[in-house]
Amino acid sequence: MRTVVVTDPPRADIRDAERLGEYGVATVHEALGRVGYLGPQIRPAWAGARVGGTAVTVLCWPGDNLMIHVAVEQCRPGDVLVVATASPSSDGLFGELFATALARRGVRGVVLGTGVRDVAQLREMGFPAWSRAVSAQGTVKATPGCVNVPVVLGGQTIHPGDVVVADDDGALVVPRSDVPRALTAARARVDKEDATRAAFRGGELGLDRYGLRAKLADLGIEYVPYDEYGRGEP
Amino acid sequence: MRTVVVTDPPRADIRDAERLGEYGVATVHEALGRVGYLGPQIRPAWAGARVGGTAVTVLCWPGDNLMIHVAVEQCRPGDVLVVATASPSSDGLFGELFATALARRGVRGVVLGTGVRDVAQLREMGFPAWSRAVSAQGTVKATPGCVNVPVVLGGQTIHPGDVVVADDDGALVVPRSDVPRALTAARARVDKEDATRAAFRGGELGLDRYGLRAKLADLGIEYVPYDEYGRGEP
Amino acid sequence: MRTVVVTDPPRADIRDAERLGEYGVATVHEALGRVGYLGPQIRPAWAGARVGGTAVTVLCWPGDNLMIHVAVEQCRPGDVLVVATASPSSDGLFGELFATALARRGVRGVVLGTGVRDVAQLREMGFPAWSRAVSAQGTVKATPGCVNVPVVLGGQTIHPGDVVVADDDGALVVPRSDVPRALTAARARVDKEDATRAAFRGGELGLDRYGLRAKLADLGIEYVPYDEYGRGEP
Amino acid sequence: MRTVVVTDPPRADIRDAERLGEYGVATVHEALGRVGYLGPQIRPAWAGARVGGTAVTVLCWPGDNLMIHVAVEQCRPGDVLVVATASPSSDGLFGELFATALARRGVRGVVLGTGVRDVAQLREMGFPAWSRAVSAQGTVKATPGCVNVPVVLGGQTIHPGDVVVADDDGALVVPRSDVPRALTAARARVDKEDATRAAFRGGELGLDRYGLRAKLADLGIEYVPYDEYGRGEP
Amino acid sequence: MRTVVVTDPPRADIRDAERLGEYGVATVHEALGRVGYLGPQIRPAWAGARVGGTAVTVLCWPGDNLMIHVAVEQCRPGDVLVVATASPSSDGLFGELFATALARRGVRGVVLGTGVRDVAQLREMGFPAWSRAVSAQGTVKATPGCVNVPVVLGGQTIHPGDVVVADDDGALVVPRSDVPRALTAARARVDKEDATRAAFRGGELGLDRYGLRAKLADLGIEYVPYDEYGRGEP
Amino acid sequence: MRTVVVTDPPRADIRDAERLGEYGVATVHEALGRVGYLGPQIRPAWAGARVGGTAVTVLCWPGDNLMIHVAVEQCRPGDVLVVATASPSSDGLFGELFATALARRGVRGVVLGTGVRDVAQLREMGFPAWSRAVSAQGTVKATPGCVNVPVVLGGQTIHPGDVVVADDDGALVVPRSDVPRALTAARARVDKEDATRAAFRGGELGLDRYGLRAKLADLGIEYVPYDEYGRGEP
Repeated sequence: MRTVVVTDPPRADIRDAERLGEYGVATVHEALGRVGYLGPQIRPAWAGARVGGTAVTVLCWPGDNLMIHVAVEQCRPGDVLVVATASPSSDGLFGELFATALARRGVRGVVLGTGVRDVAQLREMGFPAWSRAVSAQGTVKATPGCVNVPVVLGGQTIHPGDVVVADDDGALVVPRSDVPRALTAARARVDKEDATRAAFRGGELGLDRYGLRAKLADLGIEYVPYDEYGRGEP
Repeated sequence: MRTVVVTDPPRADIRDAERLGEYGVATVHEALGRVGYLGPQIRPAWAGARVGGTAVTVLCWPGDNLMIHVAVEQCRPGDVLVVATASPSSDGLFGELFATALARRGVRGVVLGTGVRDVAQLREMGFPAWSRAVSAQGTVKATPGCVNVPVVLGGQTIHPGDVVVADDDGALVVPRSDVPRALTAARARVDKEDATRAAFRGGELGLDRYGLRAKLADLGIEYVPYDEYGRGEP
Repeated sequence: MRTVVVTDPPRADIRDAERLGEYGVATVHEALGRVGYLGPQIRPAWAGARVGGTAVTVLCWPGDNLMIHVAVEQCRPGDVLVVATASPSSDGLFGELFATALARRGVRGVVLGTGVRDVAQLREMGFPAWSRAVSAQGTVKATPGCVNVPVVLGGQTIHPGDVVVADDDGALVVPRSDVPRALTAARARVDKEDATRAAFRGGELGLDRYGLRAKLADLGIEYVPYDEYGRGEP
Repeated sequence: MRTVVVTDPPRADIRDAERLGEYGVATVHEALGRVGYLGPQIRPAWAGARVGGTAVTVLCWPGDNLMIHVAVEQCRPGDVLVVATASPSSDGLFGELFATALARRGVRGVVLGTGVRDVAQLREMGFPAWSRAVSAQGTVKATPGCVNVPVVLGGQTIHPGDVVVADDDGALVVPRSDVPRALTAARARVDKEDATRAAFRGGELGLDRYGLRAKLADLGIEYVPYDEYGRGEP
Repeated sequence: MRTVVVTDPPRADIRDAERLGEYGVATVHEALGRVGYLGPQIRPAWAGARVGGTAVTVLCWPGDNLMIHVAVEQCRPGDVLVVATASPSSDGLFGELFATALARRGVRGVVLGTGVRDVAQLREMGFPAWSRAVSAQGTVKATPGCVNVPVVLGGQTIHPGDVVVADDDGALVVPRSDVPRALTAARARVDKEDATRAAFRGGELGLDRYGLRAKLADLGIEYVPYDEYGRGEP
Repeated sequence: MRTVVVTDPPRADIRDAERLGEYGVATVHEALGRVGYLGPQIRPAWAGARVGGTAVTVLCWPGDNLMIHVAVEQCRPGDVLVVATASPSSDGLFGELFATALARRGVRGVVLGTGVRDVAQLREMGFPAWSRAVSAQGTVKATPGCVNVPVVLGGQTIHPGDVVVADDDGALVVPRSDVPRALTAARARVDKEDATRAAFRGGELGLDRYGLRAKLADLGIEYVPYDEYGRGEP
């Protein structure tokens, strides 16, 4: 592994990133065609946080946060720090002091494939953090890694400058080149969901709204009254 | 698998279901003789929810929520939707739009063996949901399944019309035929626990209250002062 | 296994334990030299709890809470109950009635390698509990075990009388003989962190504050502008 | 839980069970319509075992094998012992001495939701065993349970007398009433697979054999030469 | 997600791929600088298999193997099929019939992020397969996906035409552009390991061979006789 | 953490260790009173290995095998290397070169809380290894740790010089001071098991041999003919 710090990668527009953050993870995920989700194991450190920003990526050695120190210097306002490790680890690579340094630089949040600590303080500060674990396990500063190279986190490839969206449903990456399409599609999806919500409140069924009844017949789904079906056994 | 929608299964009485919901999961579980619990992996999407209702069961293909659309139509006031999949999946099969449609029909909540999404919105709506995961991962509507057949979720068999109780401790099934017994036993258990609580507050020990001291002797448990035991090594 | 209840083990000073609780898990963990953490799987039953106390240890059989009844009698004000099992179990060995009995005796909290239940009630009571699971699964009182012998929980050996510290970051053990050193080091660490926090707020970087720039060069970390690195591919 | 030993439940025909064992898990699973599989966590203790027999079911307390002793007496030639626990456990409830006792009674194998031990000896004896874990962890004989009541294992409900099929792919239950259908469908499936295998060896593609090409078009799948697609990026 | 089948992607040289297969996973992983490993959860279906080939990549929907049928047609001699899913799944997407079809086309093996079945038959055929699970759970052919787009499997991005190496230690990807470097470095590593092996057999220590003694002193590692250290307590 | 190498700890007698290895894990575990087992997650790298030896303990940083190099020098004939990490890791800290070095020194095997690699070569060499994972993931040599201090592995505390027994059932620690008792009790247990095995082969039941029938009655277990119990429903 070449241990390199890539400086000044181009970022997606930070207002676009912010707007995607407002749409939220589930909406943008659907808008993109159901891709980009980092999976159910990346969870918020505290409930109610919501963020959209541009990725500064870090690749650390397990149990070692040296490269996060390096990455802080590469961050700009509107960024979200994204931390992966060379192999699985749950150690608490990130805590309140890092959050203080990042907040000073206008960084909007952090997403880690490992653990966070100082959860009570992060909640008090209102600094958003998503991670695979909460862990107080401390780390060393001994082994080199990378900043701003593509990393894989939660089964997704994240390039520096991509947009990261995160909320109570987890975290999502939008490749930089897909941001315009994501914005348009998310807007359309929100409109469509607004209409669907109103219809559902009015009592319309998804079966009718989405035209699924014909499909049920094609798929051979039978409707059987309970009495004919017997005691409900298969 | 025969893909069938069983209509109008008999339900347990919904006021009974509501009452069991008020007793809560741990109490009813004990009242039934320590059976029916869906295990520690089924967790509430937001803290403080509590529900008791009659099961409408759904069996979906992993990554596919077609049958939930079918199930909505089968729901009545007082029901709880119970969603299992043919094989393990954490995908977000259920979100705010489904909750809107179900709330309109008087459904009290949902329990899923997979994932939920739109957690922030569910919390705002106050729609109770329990699941194995929070996941934004979207789904298709392509593969048939079943509604109102017996399903297995969290190691328990759930028949349509059974009572489902859920709260911060997880979720529980009470077979329809056991509901009267469950109500009686839960009532008795609450009375007994009230008395025990008062006794414990007064300083009585469980060893005495439950008559366990004789058992300790029978089991060969020895009391040894620390100094005789040495440094506490086994 | 000799089934023994060791009585009156010496405890660490309970005011020292309380003070360590105030410093919190992450700080004391670092102060001790990054040891003693019980791992990310031991989680609080409700957010915001924080405790420092002296350990009364219990070794139970899986699915059996007999020995917790025995242990209650051995507890004194300032203690924290620590419950391990002979093999892995997620059952709900501990709930609100035990919490009531322990609170009466001045016990500050409980840490379990298994499950807790009655989570809503524990939160209302304000009784702090940490565990590997939330589970309503009930237990029997049939099999002997031990009280106040050394137990292993979350990869740490805990002796009776050791200090247990727990908060939103999880739980930690401080061996009784290390308590004075832990207090001194935690105090020093807090002072150092206060200074670092102020520096970070002022814009200083960890790279400079910790003198890491020379190390980066030694480790062969290169800085490469994005344009030279190309599209950010490895 | 009523602790009961049900005697002499009706069994499926043991020659039918044996025949289903010869077809194997994957074939019978497909023949039944993709139901009945106990999931990927139930693994053989040694490679190459294969069995079909009639279920004698046991429900044990975690860490306690008392009820297996009770169940041995209920076993007949051609049976397969099926052991579930009231809550999750990986303890080694079953080993070589039980296998000796069961082999004496003509029992064909064992399937456990917990652990087995004496794996080297089971392999030498040729006694087939499937389980969720290999574990030497010993157990007690203290807590009552059930024999020959329906149990849930690996997400499937197993009634006494049902057929259990197991091989290197895991284990499967065939409800007693489905055995005739399973035999017929498995025979048909084997014939069909023989023909497909011959066709595939001859170079035919599944796309053609299963008539999938039209479906691909319907689903909107595009074929794009690499050069047009660029570097293969999404 | 655009559902696309990319045809005729350029492949790495298949003799190079074969040679990397002979070096094996651990050697090539080290030669590349400790990158590219698909992690410990991807395991061989049978022990002793070893393969090096060029990737044909498939992205399936969970519980659906339609796209594997599509991918078979895209395979050439020397390829290794690589199957990812849009979200986590352990279902048995691949079995003996697919292996028969692939073997006919000269495909060397398969690596799946999900499950395989027909393990006994794959072992008899000698068809190499690596997967996250062994599972008989059957699948449908209903939902579109992709062939020969980049996929993420085991935390690594795999492009079509990359080299995949797999053996008893798991599986590894070598990006196509890194193949020449990987071959050179693997050759050098094998030579170095041969020399080290001979030295170790002759009694030399790693401490001396790798010049680590000075480092130990720098790191502050102390040597203490047992008697001075006491009973070995920390 | 004080980073220390403790030299020349006293060992249990290596012939005693060897004898315990011959009795095997399950037998010695029972002989000790069901303690000392390292749990079902520690698995052999290849089937059929069996070992008994004296522990040399190592505490490594995750992803770093520096201290194994240090430990090799501390090993003597009859030892078993025991490797723990400061926090969870599955990386392949140990492979064929280490095995070569250890075999040269008469070391009997290795037990790791992390991963092994070069599994095919270890099997060929016949060098016994147990671990939590098989992983090719490589490591660095950057961070200090300890040799011959007590470590916790698989929920057990292991002191240097303790006996480690391992076979197909996993691994077990026997504290040095318990070795004489373990030998005596294991001998007695083998004799008892020989008699039980013969009795079981002769058709005697465990219910009779262990005098369990009276206990069943005490516990309130009922025997009910199937016809009275109905269809076997609970």
